[in-house]
Amino acid sequence: MMARPGVVALSDAQRIAWLRLIRTDNVGPQTFRQLLNREGSAEAALAALPHLAGRSGIAPRIPSIAEAEEEIAALHRLGGRLVAMGELGYPDLLLHIHGPPPLLSIAGNPNLDWQRTVAMVGARNASAAGQKFARMLAADLGDAGYLVVSGLARGIDAAAHMAALSTGTVAVLAGGMDQIYPTENIPLARRIVEEGGILLTEMPIGWEPRARDFPRRNRLVSGLSLGVVVVEAARRSGSLITARLALEQNREVFAVPGSPLDPRAEGGNALIQQGARLITSAADIIEVLREADPSRNGLLEPDWLPENDDGDSMPPDETDRGRLLDALSIAPTPVDDLVKATGLAAGIVQMLLLELDLDGRLEWSGGQRVALRPL
Amino acid sequence: MMARPGVVALSDAQRIAWLRLIRTDNVGPQTFRQLLNREGSAEAALAALPHLAGRSGIAPRIPSIAEAEEEIAALHRLGGRLVAMGELGYPDLLLHIHGPPPLLSIAGNPNLDWQRTVAMVGARNASAAGQKFARMLAADLGDAGYLVVSGLARGIDAAAHMAALSTGTVAVLAGGMDQIYPTENIPLARRIVEEGGILLTEMPIGWEPRARDFPRRNRLVSGLSLGVVVVEAARRSGSLITARLALEQNREVFAVPGSPLDPRAEGGNALIQQGARLITSAADIIEVLREADPSRNGLLEPDWLPENDDGDSMPPDETDRGRLLDALSIAPTPVDDLVKATGLAAGIVQMLLLELDLDGRLEWSGGQRVALRPL
Repeated sequence: MMARPGVVALSDAQRIAWLRLIRTDNVGPQTFRQLLNREGSAEAALAALPHLAGRSGIAPRIPSIAEAEEEIAALHRLGGRLVAMGELGYPDLLLHIHGPPPLLSIAGNPNLDWQRTVAMVGARNASAAGQKFARMLAADLGDAGYLVVSGLARGIDAAAHMAALSTGTVAVLAGGMDQIYPTENIPLARRIVEEGGILLTEMPIGWEPRARDFPRRNRLVSGLSLGVVVVEAARRSGSLITARLALEQNREVFAVPGSPLDPRAEGGNALIQQGARLITSAADIIEVLREADPSRNGLLEPDWLPENDDGDSMPPDETDRGRLLDALSIAPTPVDDLVKATGLAAGIVQMLLLELDLDGRLEWSGGQRVALRPL
Repeated sequence: MMARPGVVALSDAQRIAWLRLIRTDNVGPQTFRQLLNREGSAEAALAALPHLAGRSGIAPRIPSIAEAEEEIAALHRLGGRLVAMGELGYPDLLLHIHGPPPLLSIAGNPNLDWQRTVAMVGARNASAAGQKFARMLAADLGDAGYLVVSGLARGIDAAAHMAALSTGTVAVLAGGMDQIYPTENIPLARRIVEEGGILLTEMPIGWEPRARDFPRRNRLVSGLSLGVVVVEAARRSGSLITARLALEQNREVFAVPGSPLDPRAEGGNALIQQGARLITSAADIIEVLREADPSRNGLLEPDWLPENDDGDSMPPDETDRGRLLDALSIAPTPVDDLVKATGLAAGIVQMLLLELDLDGRLEWSGGQRVALRPL
């Protein structure tokens, strides 16, 4: 059902089913994948949902076909389109992260070459020197054939996008395609699309970004890229989260050094101390990324491929459910550990987790670790 | 004859013989050691010199006893003294470099504890920020019990010495004890001695430092230290030579990062790219040096211990000499390779090298590699 990108094209009905499923309450990319693996298709998953969920007694709200059609129409009016995992235009690299979005909303150049990508992130309150350096770096990376990926924030993000307008740049949004944040960068977003770049988001039209949506978005910034460059970053900053996500995704992390007397250099310097590559020019980055063949880059194995059903068709019972709840805690725990701790078959654990997820009781981190959501 | 420092004290006559031998033309620390190993004592080496040298027909000029006595007296008038390898007050760490000076001229605190030492080096034209950071670092290192070693130059060196005056600092001179360079730092040199620090040099009284004496001096700056901190350094600078020497001596190398837009950060950033530790505080340095036990620090084995005479008492003949000259080139070659290339016994090669050295025909680098001096 799912396959290598470009091999598959969803029918209209399939696309609507996918959209309805991923927009259902408590269905994230992980749960989406589990449901598809279990039921065989999005249509079948939608039909099964009312029976699967509901230990809590509340069936998850599934958007109607009309609602899904309206989202697609609204996206079209903005010049955008939905691209599904496996379809042409879906970025290869994104398949190698935990929980890639099943559907991306994309506006702009349909023929973008996703092979050579590098993310640039940094402080919103960047110094003039930091912004100047970001512009130099982005222009040089663009000239060398790299797509510059960033988050459309103030400061370093905006400087990077600006300098890479003519060579192609990708802005990943934390909200819906009609919810550009910050509003001062709406003109920049328009230019990105007009000049051959792309706006991209996994969130629905109308979704206003909340604080927790930014780290979620950052996993796409790093996930779309062979490497992440941190230009100016304080010690606690979103840029460092992106760098950490990049490491988890086996991507390169580059950091620009700075004076120890400059608080905006603390994050970058700390990253270098922890093993990130110190860079002072685009050449430093290109030298490393040239070797980064996505197919042998230590990337994660795509985890969205259908899993084998081991024939564990016995449904879980209340005892199994109690055992899993005992094993879970508010500390993120690898699913493999839960399987070991409970002594249950992996398929049973997956099914119970799916139910708990649909009831909104779980939080996933890193795609392989799961915790009980604090009540 | 030679032994662990503090175990030996030279007699006056021995000290004068050592001084005459090391002050003889073309006798550097390497040759000094070879002569002592061969002849058994400095006195014997002085007696043998006229017979050893002189393929060139010119016997090397040996200073008279009176001249040696005058150097010692002049040093005393400046408040200084000569300390020989193996004597109390000779820094342990210096024994673990190639070609440690047989005699050091030292002025200042006779009870300095050489166990915890760190060198700070950097740009003469350092920025205000660089000097400020050097002061902070030196003061913090001093407070933590580290002697701060540097070269008394303008900029970073002077800032480091100044900030470490109260806790103890060591200035290594490129010229004689009476030839403080630059002259603007004469008051600083005086304060270093008055406030419990030390001035140190291997060069004779009256020696005005030439350009080539500074790299030679830098090997002592690094050699006296467990690690070297580079604070601000351009891409081609003496500080980077000191860092390289430190690596050859198996010492830690620390570098302070800076903006890629700041030319004075180029050297430090490049060092970090090559593997030096990025540091932003004294704590970063101390954390590493705390583990650096000089006795198990990967230091070089002391190479000044007497070598075993393998009984190779057959003197070399003209054929041997020709074979060695053929094997030598203006490219530095390890002595071991010369032994292999010539097929001569190691003792014969050493003796021939000694003769060539005394004739002024050799240049040593790193203590283990030797080249023909270009004619």
